[in-house]
Amino acid sequence: MGLNRGFGSELCDDIALAISAERISERIAALGAVGCVEGGGVTRGALTDAEDSARRMVAGWLKPLGYACGVDSACNLVGRPPEASKVVIGSHLDSVPNGGRFDGALGVVAAVEVVEALVASGVSALPWIAAWMGEEGGLLDRTLLGSAAALGVLSEDDWARDTGHGKSLREMADSWRSRWPERAASLPLDQVEHYLELHIEQGPALDAAAQPVAVVRQIVGISHINVTVIGRTDHAGTTPMNDRRDAFAAAAEMALDVERLGRQRSGTAVATIGKFAVGPGAANVVPGRAQFTLDVRSPLDDTRHELVDQIRRSFSAIAESRDVVIEWSLDAETPAVEMDAGTRRVLGDCARSIGIEPMELASGAVHDAQNWAVAGYATGMVFVRSTGGSHNPAEHAESGDSALGAAVVALAAYELSEDPQQQ
Amino acid sequence: MGLNRGFGSELCDDIALAISAERISERIAALGAVGCVEGGGVTRGALTDAEDSARRMVAGWLKPLGYACGVDSACNLVGRPPEASKVVIGSHLDSVPNGGRFDGALGVVAAVEVVEALVASGVSALPWIAAWMGEEGGLLDRTLLGSAAALGVLSEDDWARDTGHGKSLREMADSWRSRWPERAASLPLDQVEHYLELHIEQGPALDAAAQPVAVVRQIVGISHINVTVIGRTDHAGTTPMNDRRDAFAAAAEMALDVERLGRQRSGTAVATIGKFAVGPGAANVVPGRAQFTLDVRSPLDDTRHELVDQIRRSFSAIAESRDVVIEWSLDAETPAVEMDAGTRRVLGDCARSIGIEPMELASGAVHDAQNWAVAGYATGMVFVRSTGGSHNPAEHAESGDSALGAAVVALAAYELSEDPQQQ
Repeated sequence: MGLNRGFGSELCDDIALAISAERISERIAALGAVGCVEGGGVTRGALTDAEDSARRMVAGWLKPLGYACGVDSACNLVGRPPEASKVVIGSHLDSVPNGGRFDGALGVVAAVEVVEALVASGVSALPWIAAWMGEEGGLLDRTLLGSAAALGVLSEDDWARDTGHGKSLREMADSWRSRWPERAASLPLDQVEHYLELHIEQGPALDAAAQPVAVVRQIVGISHINVTVIGRTDHAGTTPMNDRRDAFAAAAEMALDVERLGRQRSGTAVATIGKFAVGPGAANVVPGRAQFTLDVRSPLDDTRHELVDQIRRSFSAIAESRDVVIEWSLDAETPAVEMDAGTRRVLGDCARSIGIEPMELASGAVHDAQNWAVAGYATGMVFVRSTGGSHNPAEHAESGDSALGAAVVALAAYELSEDPQQQ
Repeated sequence: MGLNRGFGSELCDDIALAISAERISERIAALGAVGCVEGGGVTRGALTDAEDSARRMVAGWLKPLGYACGVDSACNLVGRPPEASKVVIGSHLDSVPNGGRFDGALGVVAAVEVVEALVASGVSALPWIAAWMGEEGGLLDRTLLGSAAALGVLSEDDWARDTGHGKSLREMADSWRSRWPERAASLPLDQVEHYLELHIEQGPALDAAAQPVAVVRQIVGISHINVTVIGRTDHAGTTPMNDRRDAFAAAAEMALDVERLGRQRSGTAVATIGKFAVGPGAANVVPGRAQFTLDVRSPLDDTRHELVDQIRRSFSAIAESRDVVIEWSLDAETPAVEMDAGTRRVLGDCARSIGIEPMELASGAVHDAQNWAVAGYATGMVFVRSTGGSHNPAEHAESGDSALGAAVVALAAYELSEDPQQQ
């Protein structure tokens, strides 16, 4: 098959060799300075100065490679190559508050590195490059916002929704877009076929297996639930312990059940309470109200549904035994998404051609790639080993591992543009 | 003894009969409209428009009774009678956010009612009336602020502390005080000897015993502790359940232990987590931080200390087993305060003279009365049966019960001014 021909060629060796771990490292450091906060973390919210500065920095790297850079209607950075292949490579530049320097940023740096390697090796058909706005859910409480906008799956209502900054999403994006000289640089959706994304794993599997990169098999499905527990607000001094309907104590019992039930399915599902508030929230008042988010994920949709049902039943039992009322609202549900089998095979072959037998992993995090997969594009993802967890300043990927990941993506981008039948 | 003489007299019958349940009810309704919020509750913060309007309303009731009304340096309302006895009767006009209409307000309304009854009965030596600013802890996170200021126990540092409203306590109080025509109407601390306060019970004891009023034996001691749990912030999707150091889950386990240990001492102590926050606080992030308040109360200081120690040991064990770090900070500690034995006897005799054999109760809530007791004044408190808990819109006291409570205070105020040796 074409792939073997490709990998046997000198050109493929050139492409792999032209990847520079040092350049990746320097660019991660440079991006990490944009929106950096005390303690080494970064805060680059969606449609903020910091996110826009990061886009300009990336555009500055792409322009010397012959790319025309602009932003689309959602303020996604789009890099148009002098001669375009049917491949898009992207990731995002926003971060969670006080997040790390690698989540998203490494994927964008790697995409630029892929172009560096392809250009240095004399490849003419080059991938489109995209840096998505607002992947982390900082706007409209919706993750993967920029790629959804680029793929045309945001509704008019979504565009008109208030961002909490006194403007609709449309107004806010327009305001940032108007500062760019080249406007509405949208991706030609009908001319591309493949989407590739490199991302840090954000989990411990590669580190535990002492492997530098993995091919993503699927992205987990997620249920987002909002729970409100209503008990009775009472005076903390005058209400005997046995006469309370403490909403917080009830919620604490529920939280331990979430942990217990999640642990029973450890390896196939996770369940997390990440946001939590009590009301009225005074030291001398027994809380009459507790409100929290529940995030349940699994690569297996059935497992996820079973776990959610189990948690719900447990909450009901706790609510009944404590004489509190529970409101349960399923706010969002995303099914698990398979990565394209053909693209996974190409990525696996590319990894093997540089001496790596890659693991296949499920992604516990959402990624813009899933929007592309759902939209019907042949989509593949590469994970790079990371340590220090994720969404925190300690997250880290070695530049050597990142270079191997970028090499896999570069080879795949080349292979997929050379021989489109393969996907 | 003088008491029997007093109670046998027609004058005492007159005083008791001149108490009007209807007037109490109307005035509670009128005060309840000041700072009322949706759902029937009131929000009258310390040094706000609502609290000041309430002061003006009370001054408007006292003036026709011959009282000169003004505010002191802390903006406490002080009502000076035409001819003063050595008795002060007071309570407070501020409320917790979305609190009830009776906590504090009933004590002030009852104090005015006492004056109504004494005046109507032709008594010449009348009590000073005080309505304390900021009893609930809304300013400087310190309860009983106004009475502490009136008694001269606030330090210069306290007065200079930032209130969170861009002003020091001194500046904020001065700004409100300057709107009153009569300034610096301070109580003559060296000319008074007794402090009396009526308050709703805010607990279930009187209701359970089907009794209208009680005499307060002592006010609980309180330990206020701030606890921070530090785990590790992680991605909620990529971090396996068994690889987490979830600060929130640890705090939830601690919360259930607070409840369990508190219940073991039900009747002699209470323990409450009323304020709770997680960080970073996003639906898709495993919390690396949880922060909460712990409020432990008992009428027995030894019991309180034992319970606090027990909770602390339990927290340490949980922290160790979950590999999280705990920061424990004892922020404030108030010993239990006994009410004056002589005054309790007078109040008990007064209650019996109108046919009530009063219970003696410990107060689980703090009250301005304890500042007076600590300052060495002969202090007594009367509780009125209340239902619907407290610090919430449902708190309620029947006007008939309130009238009985006011009658007890009126008779005691009369007795104490008639025969000062008794205290």
